[in-house]
Amino acid sequence: MSHPKGKLIAIGGAEDKGTDLEAGEIHRSNLNFFELGILRRFVEEAGGPSVQIEVITTASMIPNEVGNNYLNAFGRIGCTNVDMLHIRNRQDAMRPDYIERIQKCNAVMFSGGNQLRLSAIFGGTAFLDLILKRYQSETFTVAGTSAGAMAMSNTMIYEGNAMRAHLKGEVKITTGLGLIDDVIIDSHFEKRGRFGRLSQAVASNPQCIGIGLGEDTGMLIIDGNKMEAIGSGLVVIIDGHDIIHSNIADIPDGNPISLENLKVHFCEKGNGYIISERKFLMEASEGAVIKKQVDVE
Amino acid sequence: MSHPKGKLIAIGGAEDKGTDLEAGEIHRSNLNFFELGILRRFVEEAGGPSVQIEVITTASMIPNEVGNNYLNAFGRIGCTNVDMLHIRNRQDAMRPDYIERIQKCNAVMFSGGNQLRLSAIFGGTAFLDLILKRYQSETFTVAGTSAGAMAMSNTMIYEGNAMRAHLKGEVKITTGLGLIDDVIIDSHFEKRGRFGRLSQAVASNPQCIGIGLGEDTGMLIIDGNKMEAIGSGLVVIIDGHDIIHSNIADIPDGNPISLENLKVHFCEKGNGYIISERKFLMEASEGAVIKKQVDVE
Repeated sequence: MSHPKGKLIAIGGAEDKGTDLEAGEIHRSNLNFFELGILRRFVEEAGGPSVQIEVITTASMIPNEVGNNYLNAFGRIGCTNVDMLHIRNRQDAMRPDYIERIQKCNAVMFSGGNQLRLSAIFGGTAFLDLILKRYQSETFTVAGTSAGAMAMSNTMIYEGNAMRAHLKGEVKITTGLGLIDDVIIDSHFEKRGRFGRLSQAVASNPQCIGIGLGEDTGMLIIDGNKMEAIGSGLVVIIDGHDIIHSNIADIPDGNPISLENLKVHFCEKGNGYIISERKFLMEASEGAVIKKQVDVE
Repeated sequence: MSHPKGKLIAIGGAEDKGTDLEAGEIHRSNLNFFELGILRRFVEEAGGPSVQIEVITTASMIPNEVGNNYLNAFGRIGCTNVDMLHIRNRQDAMRPDYIERIQKCNAVMFSGGNQLRLSAIFGGTAFLDLILKRYQSETFTVAGTSAGAMAMSNTMIYEGNAMRAHLKGEVKITTGLGLIDDVIIDSHFEKRGRFGRLSQAVASNPQCIGIGLGEDTGMLIIDGNKMEAIGSGLVVIIDGHDIIHSNIADIPDGNPISLENLKVHFCEKGNGYIISERKFLMEASEGAVIKKQVDVE
């Protein structure tokens, strides 16, 4: 695999619920934004508050509300060059003026919503090709929250009810935007109890490392390989490379899966992981100092 | 540890919600019983439908409803000698007539509700001592569902909100009934998204194997050591013996935990696990035949 020069920031979830396909609902409220700490880190990684950021609201069914929420949040941390790209369909994705904006910006942020909208609308478009090209060859930053995070990888979960995730076939997978291989990203990980769902996805695709992102939590991915946890919550890493027994190829859909030997790590802020080496890092950032131990008597 | 002659059957949960301390609620409805398959297995392990079974409703705040539910369910599978022990406090637990009933029965079933009620009411009583003694020295079967399952072990989770379970101190542990050491049992595992909570309990008590029981799912434990998954759902085993890095002793309460190298297994019906050897079993029952592979073309 090539070593991209750009950075990815996958964020576990804001409160934008857009469409919830699992529940069959369209939510139109609860748009509280995620904590500004992660957004600040995104802006810092992208080059500071003066960089040009395009917010791509395509995943959401309420793009104006979501977009304005981002504009306000970026505004609160001093960003002055943030615009919205309300791409609703493949025709929009081919508009030359939109492609030119991707050519000119420093970073993009994919909003939450439904990750299938991202793969179905952007797959094979010049718009996505340009993002992939810039991410590969330039210091270009791509962030995504919730559906926007899940769509980053080549192998993408698009549906899977947490209550039935232990049954084969209940976790639906397709191809994502392809910014990164060999990982599967899940979001709202703790809140929606998605351990079983990501485990099934990993068991079915054991070349992929599962990345379960909590809310107000993200992973900064550098070089397409080295990850650092950011935000206040938990990132759960699921590694299926050492699975000994798995029944997943041998049972019909609807039967419970059986798995021996998943390896799991809990990453808090500052911890990290190297995908190619499948290695947990206590201190992911290069300039990290050893944390002071806190005595708890 | 001694090798008990009795059997334990820990069941992940019926729909009796009794008291939900986490939500601060007392539920008075939704008493649908768990599937009869697990109950049938319990009766079979205890010696058949003619055995004397005592249902101990102590954990529940709605003992009559819960008890009648069990009576009906046992009745549906042909059991004729089932009675209820509505022990509400420590004085009840010392009543000679109740102790005599424990002496005469073949099996007990602890209902769901609140596991702290079980440990606080039975701890140090002659009633519990007799159950422990009979379980150790006779072919005596002890089953428990939900709170009744969680209370079986010496190390018992009594509270822990799933949403905050990645924060140190949010998972509360105390001493259970002590029928089995070296495990921590959690219930309603998938439905309530309790992977983080059981992981924290295991990380804090790495001598213990975590057993996460789904609904309509249980573990039959023989010899205090060998386990077999029963029911339609999933049992998740969490093994912390090989943890490499953990920050849990070094951070104050309220901070996110960080863990490297939990080992996790998914057991479906028929799979098992040997606690002392920390070994996953594809075929737990002794007379098991190799399952036919099902071709899925």
